[in-house]
Amino acid sequence: MDINKNNDEYIIIVGCGRLGSHLANLLSKERKSVVVIDKDEKAFDRLSDEFSGFTIEADAIEIDTLIKAKIERADVVAATTNDDNTNIMIAQIAKTIYGVPKVIARLFEPSREKVYEELEVETICPTTLSAIEFKSIILKEEEK
Amino acid sequence: MDINKNNDEYIIIVGCGRLGSHLANLLSKERKSVVVIDKDEKAFDRLSDEFSGFTIEADAIEIDTLIKAKIERADVVAATTNDDNTNIMIAQIAKTIYGVPKVIARLFEPSREKVYEELEVETICPTTLSAIEFKSIILKEEEK
Repeated sequence: MDINKNNDEYIIIVGCGRLGSHLANLLSKERKSVVVIDKDEKAFDRLSDEFSGFTIEADAIEIDTLIKAKIERADVVAATTNDDNTNIMIAQIAKTIYGVPKVIARLFEPSREKVYEELEVETICPTTLSAIEFKSIILKEEEK
Repeated sequence: MDINKNNDEYIIIVGCGRLGSHLANLLSKERKSVVVIDKDEKAFDRLSDEFSGFTIEADAIEIDTLIKAKIERADVVAATTNDDNTNIMIAQIAKTIYGVPKVIARLFEPSREKVYEELEVETICPTTLSAIEFKSIILKEEEK
């Protein structure tokens, strides 16, 4: 196991809801440097006891918050809030103002995907992923 | 291509939101027999022009609706509404009353997974799928 490899990457996760907290826990397990931002302090209760990163209680749409999170040093920004508009705004700031190398955003409405593409932001659509998974289980069953 | 194989399976999709409609469109493309149930007629606007299945505008929690959808003949029931409780109720009816061979439900709250396991219902959690996808993109990037 190569646990010392690539552990100096710095990852900012915006939103500590179900997705953000789950991702933060996963990456923390991989010994990554993680900072999670959420407006609501209670959201951080979702982080596991083993979570070794930092938390910032603030609105990530405000530039000051992102500066506090040292966005200029971030290798990855993951926008995971429940709001597509918030995610796109944060992705835009991260990409165009701070040149963050890797920006990924959750996107509920796939029709907005083009906007992200233009920004060179990767998108993850829970609906599309779920539909593919449903389909794969259904078609697998039928082969039996 | 074996397009005539397994096309007599009968699939009921409950909920024609983003997920249900996307899944219905995917399965219809595979030439499956699909019926989609939703309380809201407008939800069916999400179905593609090529969708060749049937729609039922009714509340799937009512047994009459499921009877109308010929649930006793269904090979698969996919519960895709936005409400975990509705999905679990429909999954329960499909599995225990009608013995539908394959029942799959969307589940936003993974802590409820145990209830489904006891029912032998497969679950799909968009949050878990999305977190895995985020993680995979992030770790891939770091290998560069």
